Amino acid sequence: MATAVLLLSCPDRRGIVAAVANFLVRHGGNVLHADQHVDTVEGIFFQRVEFDWDGFSLERAEFEAQFRSTVAEPFSMNVAVRYSEDQVRVGILASRQPHCLGDLLMRWSAGELPMDLRVVISNHPDHAELCTGLGVPYRHLPIEAEPDGKTRQEQQVREVLADHDVELVVLARYMQILSPTFIADHPNRIINIHHSFLPAFVGANPYRQAHDRGVKLIGATAHYATDDLDEGPIIDQETTRVTHRDDVARLTRAGRDLETTVLARAVRAHVEHRILVYGRKTVVF
Amino acid sequence: MATAVLLLSCPDRRGIVAAVANFLVRHGGNVLHADQHVDTVEGIFFQRVEFDWDGFSLERAEFEAQFRSTVAEPFSMNVAVRYSEDQVRVGILASRQPHCLGDLLMRWSAGELPMDLRVVISNHPDHAELCTGLGVPYRHLPIEAEPDGKTRQEQQVREVLADHDVELVVLARYMQILSPTFIADHPNRIINIHHSFLPAFVGANPYRQAHDRGVKLIGATAHYATDDLDEGPIIDQETTRVTHRDDVARLTRAGRDLETTVLARAVRAHVEHRILVYGRKTVVF
Amino acid sequence: MATAVLLLSCPDRRGIVAAVANFLVRHGGNVLHADQHVDTVEGIFFQRVEFDWDGFSLERAEFEAQFRSTVAEPFSMNVAVRYSEDQVRVGILASRQPHCLGDLLMRWSAGELPMDLRVVISNHPDHAELCTGLGVPYRHLPIEAEPDGKTRQEQQVREVLADHDVELVVLARYMQILSPTFIADHPNRIINIHHSFLPAFVGANPYRQAHDRGVKLIGATAHYATDDLDEGPIIDQETTRVTHRDDVARLTRAGRDLETTVLARAVRAHVEHRILVYGRKTVVF
Amino acid sequence: MATAVLLLSCPDRRGIVAAVANFLVRHGGNVLHADQHVDTVEGIFFQRVEFDWDGFSLERAEFEAQFRSTVAEPFSMNVAVRYSEDQVRVGILASRQPHCLGDLLMRWSAGELPMDLRVVISNHPDHAELCTGLGVPYRHLPIEAEPDGKTRQEQQVREVLADHDVELVVLARYMQILSPTFIADHPNRIINIHHSFLPAFVGANPYRQAHDRGVKLIGATAHYATDDLDEGPIIDQETTRVTHRDDVARLTRAGRDLETTVLARAVRAHVEHRILVYGRKTVVF
Repeated sequence: MATAVLLLSCPDRRGIVAAVANFLVRHGGNVLHADQHVDTVEGIFFQRVEFDWDGFSLERAEFEAQFRSTVAEPFSMNVAVRYSEDQVRVGILASRQPHCLGDLLMRWSAGELPMDLRVVISNHPDHAELCTGLGVPYRHLPIEAEPDGKTRQEQQVREVLADHDVELVVLARYMQILSPTFIADHPNRIINIHHSFLPAFVGANPYRQAHDRGVKLIGATAHYATDDLDEGPIIDQETTRVTHRDDVARLTRAGRDLETTVLARAVRAHVEHRILVYGRKTVVF
Repeated sequence: MATAVLLLSCPDRRGIVAAVANFLVRHGGNVLHADQHVDTVEGIFFQRVEFDWDGFSLERAEFEAQFRSTVAEPFSMNVAVRYSEDQVRVGILASRQPHCLGDLLMRWSAGELPMDLRVVISNHPDHAELCTGLGVPYRHLPIEAEPDGKTRQEQQVREVLADHDVELVVLARYMQILSPTFIADHPNRIINIHHSFLPAFVGANPYRQAHDRGVKLIGATAHYATDDLDEGPIIDQETTRVTHRDDVARLTRAGRDLETTVLARAVRAHVEHRILVYGRKTVVF
Repeated sequence: MATAVLLLSCPDRRGIVAAVANFLVRHGGNVLHADQHVDTVEGIFFQRVEFDWDGFSLERAEFEAQFRSTVAEPFSMNVAVRYSEDQVRVGILASRQPHCLGDLLMRWSAGELPMDLRVVISNHPDHAELCTGLGVPYRHLPIEAEPDGKTRQEQQVREVLADHDVELVVLARYMQILSPTFIADHPNRIINIHHSFLPAFVGANPYRQAHDRGVKLIGATAHYATDDLDEGPIIDQETTRVTHRDDVARLTRAGRDLETTVLARAVRAHVEHRILVYGRKTVVF
Repeated sequence: MATAVLLLSCPDRRGIVAAVANFLVRHGGNVLHADQHVDTVEGIFFQRVEFDWDGFSLERAEFEAQFRSTVAEPFSMNVAVRYSEDQVRVGILASRQPHCLGDLLMRWSAGELPMDLRVVISNHPDHAELCTGLGVPYRHLPIEAEPDGKTRQEQQVREVLADHDVELVVLARYMQILSPTFIADHPNRIINIHHSFLPAFVGANPYRQAHDRGVKLIGATAHYATDDLDEGPIIDQETTRVTHRDDVARLTRAGRDLETTVLARAVRAHVEHRILVYGRKTVVF
C-alpha cells in the first residue's frame, strides 16, 4: 500500500489538529497513523500523520501546494512530506569492524529495513565480498599516508555519495572523523553510533573509561552527527548490565550487540520518517 | 489545572479525528494530549483526548449532551467522559502479604497516584496500623471457619465497598477467590495482579511451577478480573531474569518487586483513564 | 592462551571443592574461572573450572585418567573435559528466514563465536551465496513432494552432518520437525529457538497467539530439542515490551531481534562449555 | 540457619582456593555459596564464601585466629568475617521525599531486608508517624537558620548514629551535603543514591539536565559516599526508557522508581556482605 507521511512542527495553538484533519478528510485521505506532541515549555507542536496515498484525490504537486497555502502557512508550520514509494537513498560508511554493517545488511536484505541502499564505502577492503555478494556496490577508499591523505579521501567519499545520490549517511562504526564542512553539508542526515550511554564517556575508548569507572551498565547511543562531536541530537539509546567480571574485552563484545541494535532502530526511525529534530533534541514518533 | 478526558471507540471510518477536533475547537477546548489507535483487523478506532477544562465554554451536562448528539451518535461511538476533579474512588483488598499494599500506600501518600483511596479491606488484621497511620480506613473482615464463612465475608466486603462508594477494586495479592457474582457486578473495575507472565503458569504456585520448568525469566501480570480466572484482559506485564541459583524463595522475592511495579502501573493507567477494554484485550494509551 | 574446562556434577557433600582445587594445584593448574552451584532440593553439586592448560604438568590422557581415579570416582562425579584448542564442530540448519542464520554467520565471521562452523544445511537454496561468500559449505537439501520425501531428506541431513563430523546442531528457525530418532541420536546436542516465552504459546504461530491474547510482552526461548516438542531444557530466554499498536507483523519483526539474540547467547554458552543439563533444567555458568 | 561469611582479597597466585577450602573442610565447614573473581589486570583475587556455622567445629575467636595465621597471613589477605546472627546495624537519613525511605521500611518490615534498623533521622518532621507506627525510632533534627546551623545539625546526627551504634548509614534521598570529616569517618559505610546514571549528569538537578540533553534513558546509581561527590565506588545502577513526551516532572516520577529499586538492591548487597571495595570500584558477588 502506498502511503504519504506529513511531518509537521509549529508554534502551539488551538486548531492545528482540526485543520490538518479537515484538509485530509476533504481530499479523501484515510489516516493510518497519527501521533502528536506538544513541548509545553518551548510551546512547540509536533505531528506525524501517515495516510493512504492510493485513495487520495490530489496529485503530489497539488497536494503539497494546497497544504502549504491552506494549512502550513496560516500556522507557520515547518512541513516535510514523504512518500513510501520514494525510499530513502542510503550510503553506509564503515571501517574494519563488521558488526553494525553486517547487521544493517542482513536486515536490509531480509526486506526488514525499507531503504534504498545505494553504496557501502570503507577505508578498508574487508567487506567487499559480503557487500557484493548481496548486490550492494562496495567502494574501498583507503586513506593514503600522505600529508593530505585524509582530506583527499573524504573528498572521494563525497563524490561517491553524490554519484549515488545518497540522502542519508550511516556511520556504522566508521572510525574516521569527518570534517566540519562535510557535517555542515549533511544537516540531520548523518547518523552515528557512539559506543557509550551519552553524555557519559564522550571521546575515545568509552569501554575502557567505563571499565575504569566501575559502572554496572554500559550503553550505546545513536545520534545525528554535528560539529560538536558526540553532542548531536540523540535518536536512540540502550544499556545492558555488566559486572566486575566483564573486562574491557567483554564490555566491548557486549557493547557490540547494543551498537547494532540501537543503530538499526535509529536508521529504521529515520527511513520511516518518524524523527523530528529541534534544537539538540529529537521527537521520535 | 482541571482537565477532561474523552475515551472513545467506534467502527473505523474517515473523519472521526476531524469531527472530534472540530467539536473541541468550537468550544474553546485546548487539547493537551491526544492518542489514537486503529485495530485494522477488527476495524475499530480508539481515541483518548485530554483537554484543558478550565477554559472550556460548556458545562459538564451541556458538553456531554452536545458531544453525544453531534459526534458520538453519528459515528456510533462508545464514549466515556472523566474529569480530573473527580478522582477515581478506590478500595484495596489485601491478605497477609504486605508488598503490593505497602507500595500502593507509599505512592498514594506521596501524592504520586491521583486516586481517592477510600478503604483497605483485609481478611487479616496485619496492616491496620500502617493504614490508619496514613489516614486510610482499615476494615478487618476475617473469614470464619463455618460452612458459609467465605460467602458471608464476601458479602461484608461488598457492603464495605458500597458504603465507601468504591468504583475500582484493587486486589493487592488478595488470596481469596471472588465469586462469579462479585466479579460480574464489577466489570473491568477489578484489577488483579497475577504472579506469573500470563498465559504461562496459570493457577496456583506459579513461582514453584517456574522453578520446576527451569525458566530463565519470571514475570508478573496485571489484568482485569473476569470469571475465567487468569484470563481477563491484560493491562501490563513485566519480566526479570533469573538463573539456576534462584530457588523458589528467591524467585518469590524477585517476583514481589515485579508484582508491586506492575500493579502500580496498572492502577495508574486506570485512574488516569488511559485504558480501553475490548474483547479480552486492552488499549493502554 | 590454551585452556581446559572441567564440567562436573555429583551428589553434594563436603570436600568436593577442596578435592578439585588440590588436584589442580598439585599439577600446576592455574584456575582462571571457577563457578559452582548446589541444587539444595535435589542435593546435586555442579562446578565449572577453567584453567590455564599451557602450564599444566600433565598430558591430556594422564590428566583425564588421574582426575577420574583420584577425584571423580570417589565423589561419583559426572565429568566432561574440554580443551579450548578443540572448538566445537557446528552445523546449522535453516529454512527460508535469514535472520538467525545471518546473525550467527556475522558473529562467527567476526571471530566472536569460538566454534568450528562446518556446514549450513537448508531445505531452500536462498542462503547459498551468503554462506559460500563467507567460506562456509552450503548444502541445499530440498524436501521432495513424494510420500517419504521428508524422511529421505532427513536421512540426507544426517549424512551431511556425519560427513562434516558435526557435534552440535543449531536449528536457526529450521521449519521442519525432526524425527524422534534424529533427536534421540543427538541428546543435548541440538539447540532450537522457539519464538515465544515458553511455556507460554507452545506450538504453531506463537506471535498470532500472543496477539490474540493481548499480551504486553513477547519472548523467545532457546532450548535443547527433545522428543517432547517445546519441552526441552531451557538455555536462555528474553522478552521485549509490545503494545496494542503491534499487529502480528510487527510482533513478528520485534520477535526476530529476540530470536537472534537469544539463539546467539545459547550457542555461545554451549560452545564455551558453560551448560550442564540435569533433568529438564540447565545450569548455565 | 546460622551462617558465616568470609570476604577475602589478596594478590592473585596459585593455591588460594585450595587453602581456603581445605581449612573449612578440616573444621567441618559446609560451604553453602562460594564465589570468586580475579582482576587479571590488577592481579587481585577476590572471594566470598558462606558456610554453615551451626556445624562448624571452632568458636568465633578460635576460627578467626586460626584462619588468620594459617591462611590469611601466608597469602597476604584482607579478610572480613561476618556472622548471620549479627545483623548489620543501619541508620537511614532522609529529607522530605518519602519514596526511598518508604520502600526500605516496607521491605524491612516485611522481613525482606536482613538488617537491624536502628533509627531514621531526618531534617524534616514528615515521616515520624510512618516510622514510629512501624516501631522504628524517628529523630527529627532540623537545620536551624543560624550561621553554623548545618554544622551543629550534622554533629547531632553523628551523636544519634553513635547512640544507636549504627554501622551503615543509608542516604535515602537525604538532601544535605555531608562534611568531608563525616564521610572520612565512615569509609565504605555510607550508601548514597544519585538520581542519574553516573558518570552522566553529576551535580544538581540531573533530571533537568537529562531533559535538556534529550536523552532516551534515565538512570539511578547507588554508590558509597566519598569526599569527591558522585565519584564514590558504584554498587548498582539501573536505567529506564523515556521519550520526548516525558517532561521533567515525568522524568522525576519515573526516576523515583529507579531510585527505590537501586537503593534497595545496594543496601541488600551490603547487609548480606556481598560487596568488596577496591580503589574506586566494587566487586558485588
